[in-house]
Amino acid sequence: MDRLIKHHILTQFGSIKSSKGVEVPLSSLDDAAVVDDIVFSTDSHTVKPLEFPGGDIGSLAVAGTVNDVAVLGAEPRALSAGFLIEEGLPFDLFDRIISSMTATAQFAGVPIVTGDTKVVEHGALQQFMINTSGIGRRNAILDNNFKQVTRYRKHHYRWLLDRNVRDGDVLILSGSIGEHGIALLSYREGYGFETKISSDIAPINRLLKQALSKAGGIVAAKDPTRGGLANTVNEFCEKSGIGIILDEEKIPILHGVQAACDLLGYDPLEIGNEGKVVLAVIPEKADDVLQVLRKHPQGKKASIIGHATSQVRGVVLKTEVGGQRIVHKPLGDPIPRIC
Amino acid sequence: MDRLIKHHILTQFGSIKSSKGVEVPLSSLDDAAVVDDIVFSTDSHTVKPLEFPGGDIGSLAVAGTVNDVAVLGAEPRALSAGFLIEEGLPFDLFDRIISSMTATAQFAGVPIVTGDTKVVEHGALQQFMINTSGIGRRNAILDNNFKQVTRYRKHHYRWLLDRNVRDGDVLILSGSIGEHGIALLSYREGYGFETKISSDIAPINRLLKQALSKAGGIVAAKDPTRGGLANTVNEFCEKSGIGIILDEEKIPILHGVQAACDLLGYDPLEIGNEGKVVLAVIPEKADDVLQVLRKHPQGKKASIIGHATSQVRGVVLKTEVGGQRIVHKPLGDPIPRIC
Repeated sequence: MDRLIKHHILTQFGSIKSSKGVEVPLSSLDDAAVVDDIVFSTDSHTVKPLEFPGGDIGSLAVAGTVNDVAVLGAEPRALSAGFLIEEGLPFDLFDRIISSMTATAQFAGVPIVTGDTKVVEHGALQQFMINTSGIGRRNAILDNNFKQVTRYRKHHYRWLLDRNVRDGDVLILSGSIGEHGIALLSYREGYGFETKISSDIAPINRLLKQALSKAGGIVAAKDPTRGGLANTVNEFCEKSGIGIILDEEKIPILHGVQAACDLLGYDPLEIGNEGKVVLAVIPEKADDVLQVLRKHPQGKKASIIGHATSQVRGVVLKTEVGGQRIVHKPLGDPIPRIC
Repeated sequence: MDRLIKHHILTQFGSIKSSKGVEVPLSSLDDAAVVDDIVFSTDSHTVKPLEFPGGDIGSLAVAGTVNDVAVLGAEPRALSAGFLIEEGLPFDLFDRIISSMTATAQFAGVPIVTGDTKVVEHGALQQFMINTSGIGRRNAILDNNFKQVTRYRKHHYRWLLDRNVRDGDVLILSGSIGEHGIALLSYREGYGFETKISSDIAPINRLLKQALSKAGGIVAAKDPTRGGLANTVNEFCEKSGIGIILDEEKIPILHGVQAACDLLGYDPLEIGNEGKVVLAVIPEKADDVLQVLRKHPQGKKASIIGHATSQVRGVVLKTEVGGQRIVHKPLGDPIPRIC
């Protein structure tokens, strides 16, 4: 996938000579791009099955795109929805998914303003696929957040980008990990964990807004979706050119998720989430951010899980038994078709 | 499709209570939405086959979205690309499509800034599907265009919308119709017309920019894609609440397209195009717009094809043999999987 994107797509699209106003380009491979101060992101969803404990392809599509726009520090302003529907998709299933998109968009406070619907013949695709794109705007909350940063640090930031993490920055995770991937896998394969584990799908824009406005000092944010927390911290590490130390005992994992991972041989750090966010915060503001997150219903289990340091290379996990191991960037999706 | 969109999607998405800044909402069912002065549009593409005379799914996706943003009068500023790829898609085919997207985006002068790639197992979809979304900005050219309108008319417009057409407005078509649909159908079915007919796929943003900036007085614009010219003029008619008279002999149609339509029993007015635009222009500026279009390589065959009038209801076609007939809104796609 990495090779496909870098060698077959980026080399071509990167050659288009129209970069006027493009502040965060495709080549940043961040969660969204920035053009003319507009944050812009897209996601295609092929989740299987379409409905599962805690959500469906509709809530997933809306939350995923809202979150990709929000983690750059923008206020999500509008969504698009592109539907690919196979002939014969039951209307009641379609209606439930549309209802779920509506409720999720309402929760996030972001309207769905434009769309496209294509119905294709039976056999052309599996039932239903959705693309959502989103746009967001800069607002004063982000400026105030960075004012908190510049009180302590001369470096100037414009957006919350993966490349902004510096020596000493504290990593905060908003809640427990692994529920989305395990809920979906378990439900699909019938392992029986599904009675206990639901997907965590949720827009995190309101939670992040609280942290930006009531505490500030955040320099980077990312939602740990495909590839999970392992991928997110490796992205920070690679793009910022900084080492990261994670503290295993501080990473919240539900007992059921840990049990399922142990049994199935998965690393919970590599399992995708759809309602969490990882923040990199200047050390002076880390406790403030943590307190604000914990007061919010979506951040009750927020935890300081590690910090950036030039003392190590890559991502190092201090394990609960007192050892340490390297956390690699996951190769491919450990669990396919979860988003 | 109309029922699906209006009864199953609009009723739900229209209920989301977050309309602040939404100037052109989903319920307008125009080519794009407008939020905070940002024009925003999306398209999912399932064309079959992926390559055909005159284009491929890549050029189609880029041109289609550029055009949907441009026909509101905006300057297209950036595109997203969401890829759904079936395992086993040949790399050389993928590379050709990406090259084609690159060349088309370059021609339009619009960068592809953000994307998403999902690879799904064999059987989950037919080879390759693309979603493109686009954003555009308001600029002084659009304001100057409307200044030409207000010299003659008190009504104030902000964007080129389907609902803006008034009694006496002149309809101008930028070139010949039917090539895209007939080229694709013929190539797919092996009718043999394909040696003569190529798709007209092209971004029309530069052509439209010339007309807006060098003539002005344009009140509405629409690219006659799905449902062809028949659908486009019916949209103007319904949304503006005005009758339209079209003059059959003024509508440019290539001999090969007409012959294919005659043989296969299609109405060329209902065949989709991907590189044309229909403009509604105040009568005082119609000749100026026509001259500007004809000087541009993409508008050499531009033609005044009719006008809006309160004297008729619906769309009336004055036929070449001196009769007249009602042009209905096409029910469904006469040719499936062409975009």
